[in-house]
Amino acid sequence: MKIAVLPGDGIGPEIVAQAAKVLDALKSDGLHIETEYAHLGGAGYDAAGDPFPAATENLVKASDAVLLGAVGGYQYDALPRAMRPEQGLLRIRKSLNLFANLRPAMVYPELVNASSLKPELVSGLDILILRELTGDIYFGQPRGIRTLESGERQGFDTMHYSESEIRRVAHVGFKSAMKRSYKLCSVDKANVLDTSMFWREIVTDVARDYPEVVLSHMYVDNAAMQLVRAPKQFDVILTGNIFGDILSDEASMLTGSIGMLPSASLDENNKGLYEPCHGSAPDIAGQDIANPLATILSVAMMMRYTFAREDVAQRIEGAVRSVLQQGLRTGDIFEAGMQKVGCTAMGDAVVAA
Amino acid sequence: MKIAVLPGDGIGPEIVAQAAKVLDALKSDGLHIETEYAHLGGAGYDAAGDPFPAATENLVKASDAVLLGAVGGYQYDALPRAMRPEQGLLRIRKSLNLFANLRPAMVYPELVNASSLKPELVSGLDILILRELTGDIYFGQPRGIRTLESGERQGFDTMHYSESEIRRVAHVGFKSAMKRSYKLCSVDKANVLDTSMFWREIVTDVARDYPEVVLSHMYVDNAAMQLVRAPKQFDVILTGNIFGDILSDEASMLTGSIGMLPSASLDENNKGLYEPCHGSAPDIAGQDIANPLATILSVAMMMRYTFAREDVAQRIEGAVRSVLQQGLRTGDIFEAGMQKVGCTAMGDAVVAA
Ligand SMILES: CC(C)[C@H](C(=O)O)[C@@H](O)C(=O)O
Ligand SMILES: CC(C)[C@H](C(=O)O)[C@@H](O)C(=O)O
Repeated sequence: MKIAVLPGDGIGPEIVAQAAKVLDALKSDGLHIETEYAHLGGAGYDAAGDPFPAATENLVKASDAVLLGAVGGYQYDALPRAMRPEQGLLRIRKSLNLFANLRPAMVYPELVNASSLKPELVSGLDILILRELTGDIYFGQPRGIRTLESGERQGFDTMHYSESEIRRVAHVGFKSAMKRSYKLCSVDKANVLDTSMFWREIVTDVARDYPEVVLSHMYVDNAAMQLVRAPKQFDVILTGNIFGDILSDEASMLTGSIGMLPSASLDENNKGLYEPCHGSAPDIAGQDIANPLATILSVAMMMRYTFAREDVAQRIEGAVRSVLQQGLRTGDIFEAGMQKVGCTAMGDAVVAA
Repeated sequence: MKIAVLPGDGIGPEIVAQAAKVLDALKSDGLHIETEYAHLGGAGYDAAGDPFPAATENLVKASDAVLLGAVGGYQYDALPRAMRPEQGLLRIRKSLNLFANLRPAMVYPELVNASSLKPELVSGLDILILRELTGDIYFGQPRGIRTLESGERQGFDTMHYSESEIRRVAHVGFKSAMKRSYKLCSVDKANVLDTSMFWREIVTDVARDYPEVVLSHMYVDNAAMQLVRAPKQFDVILTGNIFGDILSDEASMLTGSIGMLPSASLDENNKGLYEPCHGSAPDIAGQDIANPLATILSVAMMMRYTFAREDVAQRIEGAVRSVLQQGLRTGDIFEAGMQKVGCTAMGDAVVAA
């Protein structure tokens, strides 16, 4: 298991250090894990003048999986767009062809009170949002700022999806649904967008290969509402890059414990990049108070998807559940009666468990 | 006051009938109101083979304001897109140049328990979402389904905003902020989209005319999260057509009482179309159980924005508050201990109040 580790910016290095302890523990137990570190985001810019340095690209291409902390920091805000941390993220996704982004939104029984929503609406919540990650308006050409014949300027972008792009992510969606509740909800804006009309046509066609799965379609505005109204109606949600960006963030915040949510971004062969759903939180960086559990759970996803080691994945997830049951909490998920711990202590507790 | 009334589909005719009673009451009290009815959406297709018939276009162009119920129904789902009810909506917006869509999301003290969110997070909530309504990827050309050189098909759309389109809606946003809390949050995806980068540049430029207003910028994915986490941090949110579609629906559902929320869509001269935020609810149409209050409150917005009659607007809003205080509730906002009433009875109660 050759794993590239990219700590990134802000709290990235701290949380990744805890996940690295988990990898070390697995290594002592006999897994053949090799890790190598490189820079991404602001760290890449600082080290090599590029948010996705060539050395990083070479390393991740030669690895089986990538573990990422998070990218971004105020000190990079004034840089030209091509040098900003998030460009590192967009470029690594594209370079590795990581088209399938899996973002689970689930509520741990121990943390049900952390949600903004009433407990009965979210207790037991377990949604998988599958977001297409290398197409759509994120990468469509042409784009830019142009001068119209009238002399005034106009900003513009192109949304597009080809048949093969939709097909491959739809297959991932239906396969995920087959492992869960046989329900797939595809989200688009087919009443307005041609891209969405085409998306719906192709997803409907792929559905014929999965007669056991019940496919439904929902408009994105309605999905944004239904997630608030009754999130448990959903199981797997399949959607494009920009709608997935918005809905997966909304869904993760519904759980109230975004510090607990991992994600996976996979290519055609299950090579993947694994990272927490939350950001680099520069305001709390370096204070040893960040929650490392989403990053540790990202290692579990890595074991499940890239290395097909469901047993190891469950062992990690079990350890996380156990520290929650012990009452350990970082600040973001703390409530009265629990024991507040820092990032390092939480990582140690998971390793012990 | 020449008002075009478009009942539309589903519950549209029932709820508009209650709003019409309010208009009649105002007429008896001396307002010079003239109403004329026409078809939009499915009703337009049924009557004239077109979701936005020429007769309707002529009427709304000759009117000062438009009162709309809602459009859409299952029986139109199989029609080609150009004939579907929502095309009537898109075309009337474009035809009247209704670029500024005001969608308040507020929680009435009497209805705070109706929200999915914990009461302390939403009590006193009062957000105004200002959505640009005639530009963006909704109307951008080129768009369609094309065959690539590789032989495979691709769906595509164009997002764009010109400087003048951004400027005029930004002015509406800053002016709204001047009447409220002097806070404007502009939402975009400037870390990815060129359209958004340009949007941010122009909004920032317009801000110089309003030094009293504190302008902030937020990415749309973060906005979708922050609305769930702490909605009261917002006052006026300014955003484009597609992001506004998603965020305004999310925000309205946060209140738990979407049956209470009106909206206004204005042109440069405050001519406007007024309609409830909710849809045509075909499943409950014809049963006299729909909530007419959002439509009645849309009349209040009409009095405020198109006719500059703040006094009349407040009178209508006061009557609605009073029926809530009397304990009257339609099914969608009912809770134990209150008195359940139908659509007609609710309309009568508002007129009486
Ligand atoms: C940082 C940004 C470019 C990125 C995205 O929009 O994809 C982020 O929001 C995410 O969801 O991973
Ligand atoms: C029906 C649809 C075209 C419309 C839109 O997307 O604008 C609706 O969702 C709305 O928000 O008024």
